[in-house]
Amino acid sequence: MATFMDVHSGMTGITEEQLKEAHAADLAIEGDEGVHFEHAWMDPKSGKVFCLSTGPDREAVMRVHERAGHPTSEVYEVPIEV
Amino acid sequence: MATFMDVHSGMTGITEEQLKEAHAADLAIEGDEGVHFEHAWMDPKSGKVFCLSTGPDREAVMRVHERAGHPTSEVYEVPIEV
Repeated sequence: MATFMDVHSGMTGITEEQLKEAHAADLAIEGDEGVHFEHAWMDPKSGKVFCLSTGPDREAVMRVHERAGHPTSEVYEVPIEV
Repeated sequence: MATFMDVHSGMTGITEEQLKEAHAADLAIEGDEGVHFEHAWMDPKSGKVFCLSTGPDREAVMRVHERAGHPTSEVYEVPIEV
């Protein structure tokens, strides 16, 4: 199991409610891929969303986000943390 | 007090020890700016580092990173999280 940070861009103006809905959409299907989305942080001004997850590989994280309707190719494996 | 996620790029090949040193350099001076760096995640392959912090504003976060020797202009205020 590895840890990932992924980045979504261009989600300018997204509300807290919409972020919760997007996160819930991930949670609803993440089990299919052995992924778990732990946390998400959002800057509505710039439209950036950062998601922290665990899972088997980058591709699995990408598949969950894509199926949930908010694809991103910017998924980084982050094996080192402090 | 606000929450921030910042992104460093181009730190390819950085080791866990170097990340710890960089984080310690932030912690040593962050109090001057009322900032606290909570956590950092690193992808040594792509050279991306993500730092989660709290502080008064973006500029304070940028000043700490700059004085600690690893400046970035990519600092996002993340008022919404799930």
